[in-house]
Amino acid sequence: MSFDECYIKSVMRTIPDWPEPGIMFRDITPLFKDPKALRMISDAFIQRYIDSDITHIASIDARGFLIGSIMAYQLNIPLVLVRKKGKLPGETVSQEYKLEYGSATVEMQSDAVAEGDKVLIFDDLIATGGTVLAASTIVKELGASVAEVATLINLPDLQGSRKIQEAGIPVYSLMSYEGL
Amino acid sequence: MSFDECYIKSVMRTIPDWPEPGIMFRDITPLFKDPKALRMISDAFIQRYIDSDITHIASIDARGFLIGSIMAYQLNIPLVLVRKKGKLPGETVSQEYKLEYGSATVEMQSDAVAEGDKVLIFDDLIATGGTVLAASTIVKELGASVAEVATLINLPDLQGSRKIQEAGIPVYSLMSYEGL
Repeated sequence: MSFDECYIKSVMRTIPDWPEPGIMFRDITPLFKDPKALRMISDAFIQRYIDSDITHIASIDARGFLIGSIMAYQLNIPLVLVRKKGKLPGETVSQEYKLEYGSATVEMQSDAVAEGDKVLIFDDLIATGGTVLAASTIVKELGASVAEVATLINLPDLQGSRKIQEAGIPVYSLMSYEGL
Repeated sequence: MSFDECYIKSVMRTIPDWPEPGIMFRDITPLFKDPKALRMISDAFIQRYIDSDITHIASIDARGFLIGSIMAYQLNIPLVLVRKKGKLPGETVSQEYKLEYGSATVEMQSDAVAEGDKVLIFDDLIATGGTVLAASTIVKELGASVAEVATLINLPDLQGSRKIQEAGIPVYSLMSYEGL
Protein backbone atom coordinates (compact mmCIF):
# COMPACT_ATOMS: atom_id res chain seq x y z
CA MET A 1 0.00 0.00 0.00
CA SER A 2 1.65 3.22 -1.10
CA PHE A 3 0.82 6.73 0.01
CA ASP A 4 -2.27 8.09 -1.72
CA GLU A 5 -2.56 11.84 -1.10
CA CYS A 6 -6.05 12.02 -2.65
CA TYR A 7 -7.31 9.35 -0.29
CA ILE A 8 -5.76 11.02 2.76
CA LYS A 9 -7.10 14.45 1.81
CA SER A 10 -10.55 12.92 1.37
CA VAL A 11 -10.42 11.61 4.95
CA MET A 12 -9.14 14.93 6.40
CA ARG A 13 -11.65 17.49 7.61
CA THR A 14 -11.34 21.25 7.28
CA ILE A 15 -13.10 23.34 9.89
CA PRO A 16 -13.52 27.01 8.91
CA ASP A 17 -13.03 29.81 11.46
CA TRP A 18 -11.49 27.64 14.19
CA PRO A 19 -9.94 28.36 16.66
CA GLU A 20 -10.55 31.91 15.43
CA PRO A 21 -12.23 33.67 12.49
CA GLY A 22 -10.31 33.46 9.21
CA ILE A 23 -8.43 30.25 10.07
CA MET A 24 -9.15 27.11 8.02
CA PHE A 25 -8.31 24.46 10.63
CA ARG A 26 -6.95 21.22 9.16
CA ASP A 27 -8.38 18.55 11.46
CA ILE A 28 -6.31 15.36 11.38
CA THR A 29 -8.44 13.43 13.89
CA PRO A 30 -10.36 11.56 11.13
CA LEU A 31 -7.03 10.07 9.96
CA PHE A 32 -6.63 8.31 13.31
CA LYS A 33 -10.18 7.04 13.17
CA ASP A 34 -9.55 5.43 9.77
CA PRO A 35 -7.16 2.44 10.12
CA LYS A 36 -6.28 2.54 6.41
CA ALA A 37 -5.33 6.22 6.61
CA LEU A 38 -3.31 5.77 9.81
CA ARG A 39 -1.38 2.90 8.25
CA MET A 40 -0.80 4.81 5.02
CA ILE A 41 0.63 7.92 6.67
CA SER A 42 2.67 6.00 9.27
CA ASP A 43 4.14 3.68 6.65
CA ALA A 44 5.08 6.60 4.39
CA PHE A 45 7.31 7.97 7.17
CA ILE A 46 8.61 4.55 8.22
CA GLN A 47 9.63 3.72 4.64
CA ARG A 48 11.38 7.07 4.28
CA TYR A 49 13.54 6.59 7.38
CA ILE A 50 14.05 2.83 7.49
CA ASP A 51 17.50 3.04 5.89
CA SER A 52 18.49 6.45 7.24
CA ASP A 53 21.15 7.16 9.86
CA ILE A 54 18.69 8.95 12.16
CA THR A 55 19.36 7.98 15.78
CA HIS A 56 16.42 9.63 17.59
CA ILE A 57 12.90 10.90 16.91
CA ALA A 58 11.91 14.05 18.81
CA SER A 59 8.14 14.32 18.71
CA ILE A 60 6.25 17.44 19.62
CA ASP A 61 3.45 17.62 22.22
CA ALA A 62 0.70 16.50 21.70
CA ARG A 63 -0.41 15.56 18.17
CA GLY A 64 3.21 14.91 17.15
CA PHE A 65 3.23 12.07 19.70
CA LEU A 66 0.63 10.12 17.71
CA ILE A 67 2.74 9.35 14.65
CA GLY A 68 6.14 9.84 16.31
CA SER A 69 5.59 6.87 18.60
CA ILE A 70 4.49 4.58 15.76
CA MET A 71 7.65 5.50 13.85
CA ALA A 72 9.86 4.84 16.88
CA TYR A 73 8.16 1.48 17.49
CA GLN A 74 8.55 0.35 13.89
CA LEU A 75 12.05 1.74 13.33
CA ASN A 76 13.38 0.57 16.73
CA ILE A 77 14.91 3.93 17.51
CA PRO A 78 14.58 6.06 20.67
CA LEU A 79 11.67 8.48 20.97
CA VAL A 80 12.22 11.68 22.96
CA LEU A 81 9.59 14.25 23.84
CA VAL A 82 9.36 17.97 23.19
CA ARG A 83 6.75 19.32 25.61
CA LYS A 84 5.17 22.52 26.77
CA LYS A 85 6.89 24.11 29.76
CA GLY A 86 6.43 22.37 33.10
CA LYS A 87 5.33 18.98 31.76
CA LEU A 88 8.64 17.09 31.86
CA PRO A 89 10.19 15.94 35.14
CA GLY A 90 13.93 15.98 35.86
CA GLU A 91 16.51 18.41 34.50
CA THR A 92 15.27 20.18 31.37
CA VAL A 93 16.41 22.70 28.78
CA SER A 94 13.81 25.15 27.53
CA GLN A 95 13.42 27.54 24.62
CA GLU A 96 10.96 30.36 24.21
CA TYR A 97 9.49 31.31 20.84
CA LYS A 98 7.20 34.00 19.57
CA LEU A 99 3.55 33.54 18.74
CA GLU A 100 1.38 36.01 16.86
CA TYR A 101 0.45 37.46 20.24
CA GLY A 102 2.79 36.67 23.13
CA SER A 103 5.13 33.71 23.39
CA ALA A 104 5.34 30.03 24.28
CA THR A 105 8.07 27.77 25.66
CA VAL A 106 9.01 24.18 24.84
CA GLU A 107 11.25 21.88 26.86
CA MET A 108 13.24 18.69 26.49
CA GLN A 109 14.92 16.62 29.18
CA SER A 110 18.65 17.42 29.34
CA ASP A 111 19.60 13.80 28.70
CA ALA A 112 17.15 13.34 25.81
CA VAL A 113 19.84 13.60 23.12
CA ALA A 114 23.62 14.12 23.15
CA GLU A 115 26.64 14.84 20.97
CA GLY A 116 26.73 12.68 17.85
CA ASP A 117 22.99 12.02 17.78
CA LYS A 118 21.16 12.68 14.51
CA VAL A 119 17.66 13.75 15.38
CA LEU A 120 14.48 13.72 13.32
CA ILE A 121 12.03 16.29 14.64
CA PHE A 122 8.40 15.29 14.03
CA ASP A 123 5.25 17.38 14.32
CA ASP A 124 1.84 16.93 12.72
CA LEU A 125 1.73 20.35 11.06
CA ILE A 126 4.15 23.15 10.15
CA ALA A 127 2.64 26.62 10.10
CA THR A 128 4.96 29.44 11.19
CA GLY A 129 7.64 26.93 12.23
CA GLY A 130 8.13 28.47 15.68
CA THR A 131 7.76 25.26 17.69
CA VAL A 132 10.01 23.23 15.41
CA LEU A 133 12.72 25.92 15.35
CA ALA A 134 12.63 26.15 19.16
CA ALA A 135 12.93 22.35 19.37
CA SER A 136 15.89 22.39 16.97
CA THR A 137 17.61 25.06 19.09
CA ILE A 138 17.34 22.75 22.13
CA VAL A 139 18.57 19.71 20.16
CA LYS A 140 21.66 21.65 19.05
CA GLU A 141 22.21 23.09 22.54
CA LEU A 142 22.38 19.50 23.81
CA GLY A 143 25.16 18.81 21.26
CA ALA A 144 23.15 16.79 18.74
CA SER A 145 22.27 17.67 15.16
CA VAL A 146 18.89 17.90 13.43
CA ALA A 147 18.88 15.57 10.43
CA GLU A 148 15.46 16.55 9.15
CA VAL A 149 12.07 17.88 10.14
CA ALA A 150 9.14 15.66 9.15
CA THR A 151 5.50 16.64 9.17
CA LEU A 152 2.16 15.40 7.95
CA ILE A 153 0.95 18.80 6.75
CA ASN A 154 2.83 21.84 5.54
CA LEU A 155 1.16 25.23 5.25
CA PRO A 156 3.76 26.86 2.97
CA ASP A 157 2.01 30.25 2.88
CA LEU A 158 2.82 30.69 6.56
CA GLN A 159 6.54 30.49 5.69
CA GLY A 160 7.51 28.04 8.46
CA SER A 161 9.03 25.42 6.16
CA ARG A 162 11.02 28.16 4.34
CA LYS A 163 12.44 29.46 7.65
CA ILE A 164 13.40 25.94 8.77
CA GLN A 165 15.14 25.28 5.45
CA GLU A 166 16.94 28.64 5.69
CA ALA A 167 18.26 27.44 9.07
CA GLY A 168 19.91 24.60 7.13
CA ILE A 169 17.42 21.87 8.07
CA PRO A 170 15.66 19.78 5.39
CA VAL A 171 11.87 19.59 5.67
CA TYR A 172 9.83 16.59 4.53
CA SER A 173 6.03 16.84 4.43
CA LEU A 174 3.43 14.38 3.18
CA MET A 175 0.89 17.03 2.13
CA SER A 176 0.56 20.75 1.62
CA TYR A 177 -2.41 23.07 1.83
CA GLU A 178 -2.42 26.53 0.34
CA GLY A 179 -3.66 29.44 2.46
CA LEU A 180 -3.85 29.82 6.23
CA MET B 1 9.76 -11.36 23.69
CA SER B 2 7.34 -11.47 26.59
CA PHE B 3 6.65 -8.72 29.09
CA ASP B 4 9.36 -8.49 31.75
CA GLU B 5 8.21 -6.25 34.60
CA CYS B 6 11.66 -6.25 36.25
CA TYR B 7 13.26 -5.00 33.06
CA ILE B 8 10.62 -2.29 32.55
CA LYS B 9 10.86 -1.13 36.17
CA SER B 10 14.66 -0.96 35.83
CA VAL B 11 14.26 1.41 32.85
CA MET B 12 11.64 3.61 34.59
CA ARG B 13 12.80 6.61 36.59
CA THR B 14 11.29 7.85 39.85
CA ILE B 15 11.67 11.54 40.56
CA PRO B 16 10.99 12.46 44.20
CA ASP B 17 9.08 15.62 45.12
CA TRP B 18 7.83 16.41 41.60
CA PRO B 19 5.69 18.23 40.60
CA GLU B 20 5.26 18.99 44.32
CA PRO B 21 6.79 17.89 47.65
CA GLY B 22 5.76 14.41 48.78
CA ILE B 23 4.98 13.07 45.29
CA MET B 24 7.14 10.26 43.89
CA PHE B 25 6.75 10.97 40.17
CA ARG B 26 6.90 7.87 37.97
CA ASP B 27 8.68 9.12 34.85
CA ILE B 28 7.90 6.95 31.83
CA THR B 29 10.00 8.94 29.33
CA PRO B 30 12.97 6.49 29.60
CA LEU B 31 10.67 3.71 28.30
CA PHE B 32 10.25 5.59 25.02
CA LYS B 33 13.98 6.16 24.74
CA ASP B 34 14.63 2.42 25.04
CA PRO B 35 13.40 0.58 21.90
CA LYS B 36 13.31 -2.76 23.72
CA ALA B 37 11.13 -1.33 26.49
CA LEU B 38 8.79 0.43 24.05
CA ARG B 39 8.32 -2.77 22.08
CA MET B 40 7.78 -4.83 25.23
CA ILE B 41 5.07 -2.61 26.67
CA SER B 42 3.34 -2.00 23.34
CA ASP B 43 3.31 -5.69 22.45
CA ALA B 44 1.90 -6.62 25.85
CA PHE B 45 -1.17 -4.49 25.12
CA ILE B 46 -1.40 -5.54 21.47
CA GLN B 47 -1.33 -9.23 22.42
CA ARG B 48 -4.02 -8.67 25.06
CA TYR B 49 -6.45 -7.05 22.62
CA ILE B 50 -5.64 -8.80 19.32
CA ASP B 51 -8.55 -11.23 19.65
CA SER B 52 -10.91 -8.96 21.57
CA ASP B 53 -14.11 -7.39 20.28
CA ILE B 54 -12.94 -3.84 21.05
CA THR B 55 -13.95 -1.50 18.24
CA HIS B 56 -12.19 1.76 19.26
CA ILE B 57 -9.27 2.96 21.38
CA ALA B 58 -9.83 6.25 23.20
CA SER B 59 -6.45 7.60 24.25
CA ILE B 60 -5.99 10.36 26.76
CA ASP B 61 -4.00 13.57 26.09
CA ALA B 62 -1.01 13.58 26.01
CA ARG B 63 1.05 10.63 27.27
CA GLY B 64 -1.81 8.25 26.54
CA PHE B 65 -1.37 9.13 22.85
CA LEU B 66 2.07 7.53 22.78
CA ILE B 67 1.03 3.91 23.30
CA GLY B 68 -2.58 4.34 22.17
CA SER B 69 -1.50 5.15 18.62
CA ILE B 70 0.86 2.16 18.40
CA MET B 71 -1.98 -0.12 19.54
CA ALA B 72 -4.38 1.35 16.97
CA TYR B 73 -1.79 0.98 14.20
CA GLN B 74 -1.03 -2.64 15.04
CA LEU B 75 -4.60 -3.71 15.79
CA ASN B 76 -6.11 -1.86 12.79
CA ILE B 77 -8.83 -0.28 14.87
CA PRO B 78 -9.88 3.39 15.06
CA LEU B 79 -8.13 5.71 17.51
CA VAL B 80 -10.13 8.56 19.02
CA LEU B 81 -8.79 11.32 21.23
CA VAL B 82 -9.74 12.48 24.71
CA ARG B 83 -8.30 15.96 25.08
CA LYS B 84 -8.18 18.88 27.48
CA LYS B 85 -10.90 21.46 26.92
CA GLY B 86 -10.55 23.62 23.82
CA LYS B 87 -8.11 21.42 21.90
CA LEU B 88 -10.51 19.55 19.63
CA PRO B 89 -12.20 21.23 16.65
CA GLY B 90 -15.77 20.56 15.57
CA GLU B 91 -18.68 19.60 17.77
CA THR B 92 -17.55 18.19 21.12
CA VAL B 93 -18.94 16.74 24.33
CA SER B 94 -17.15 17.67 27.54
CA GLN B 95 -17.06 16.41 31.09
CA GLU B 96 -15.69 18.16 34.15
CA TYR B 97 -14.00 16.27 36.97
CA LYS B 98 -12.59 17.17 40.35
CA LEU B 99 -8.91 17.53 41.10
CA GLU B 100 -7.40 17.78 44.57
CA TYR B 101 -7.71 21.55 44.21
CA GLY B 102 -10.18 22.80 41.61
CA SER B 103 -11.36 20.93 38.55
CA ALA B 104 -10.45 20.02 34.97
CA THR B 105 -12.45 19.23 31.83
CA VAL B 106 -11.90 16.67 29.09
CA GLU B 107 -13.54 16.57 25.69
CA MET B 108 -14.20 14.20 22.82
CA GLN B 109 -15.57 14.94 19.36
CA SER B 110 -19.29 14.14 19.20
CA ASP B 111 -18.77 11.70 16.33
CA ALA B 112 -15.80 9.94 17.94
CA VAL B 113 -17.81 6.89 19.00
CA ALA B 114 -21.45 5.85 18.67
CA GLU B 115 -24.02 3.29 19.79
CA GLY B 116 -22.76 -0.27 19.59
CA ASP B 117 -19.07 0.68 19.83
CA LYS B 118 -16.97 -1.13 22.45
CA VAL B 119 -14.32 1.27 23.59
CA LEU B 120 -10.98 0.64 25.27
CA ILE B 121 -9.87 3.72 27.21
CA PHE B 122 -6.09 4.02 27.43
CA ASP B 123 -3.98 6.27 29.64
CA ASP B 124 -0.37 5.92 30.78
CA LEU B 125 -1.15 6.06 34.52
CA ILE B 126 -4.12 5.69 36.83
CA ALA B 127 -3.95 7.68 40.05
CA THR B 128 -7.28 9.00 41.37
CA GLY B 129 -9.05 7.87 38.20
CA GLY B 130 -10.74 11.23 37.59
CA THR B 131 -9.69 11.63 33.96
CA VAL B 132 -10.60 8.07 32.99
CA LEU B 133 -14.00 8.25 34.71
CA ALA B 134 -14.75 11.55 32.95
CA ALA B 135 -13.76 9.97 29.62
CA SER B 136 -15.98 6.97 30.30
CA THR B 137 -18.92 9.29 31.07
CA ILE B 138 -18.48 10.90 27.65
CA VAL B 139 -18.17 7.53 25.88
CA LYS B 140 -21.45 6.38 27.46
CA GLU B 141 -23.14 9.72 26.73
CA LEU B 142 -22.31 9.14 23.05
CA GLY B 143 -24.10 5.78 23.25
CA ALA B 144 -21.05 3.50 23.28
CA SER B 145 -19.85 1.20 26.04
CA VAL B 146 -16.49 1.04 27.80
CA ALA B 147 -15.08 -2.46 27.41
CA GLU B 148 -12.01 -1.93 29.59
CA VAL B 149 -9.56 0.65 30.86
CA ALA B 150 -5.91 -0.12 30.11
CA THR B 151 -2.92 1.58 31.66
CA LEU B 152 0.81 1.18 31.92
CA ILE B 153 0.98 2.07 35.61
CA ASN B 154 -1.54 1.75 38.38
CA LEU B 155 -1.13 3.55 41.71
CA PRO B 156 -3.63 1.46 43.72
CA ASP B 157 -3.18 3.46 46.94
CA LEU B 158 -4.83 6.44 45.23
CA GLN B 159 -8.00 4.33 44.75
CA GLY B 160 -8.58 5.25 41.10
CA SER B 161 -8.60 1.66 39.81
CA ARG B 162 -10.97 0.65 42.60
CA LYS B 163 -13.39 3.48 41.70
CA ILE B 164 -13.30 2.54 38.01
CA GLN B 165 -14.01 -1.11 38.82
CA GLU B 166 -16.86 -0.07 41.13
CA ALA B 167 -18.33 1.75 38.12
CA GLY B 168 -18.48 -1.66 36.42
CA ILE B 169 -15.44 -1.20 34.16
CA PRO B 170 -12.58 -3.73 34.18
CA VAL B 171 -9.08 -2.27 34.64
CA TYR B 172 -5.94 -3.79 33.15
CA SER B 173 -2.53 -2.45 34.17
CA LEU B 174 0.95 -3.67 33.29
CA MET B 175 2.57 -2.51 36.53
CA SER B 176 1.69 -1.21 39.96
CA TYR B 177 3.57 1.01 42.37
CA GLU B 178 2.70 1.27 46.05
CA GLY B 179 2.40 4.74 47.60
CA LEU B 180 1.67 8.07 45.99
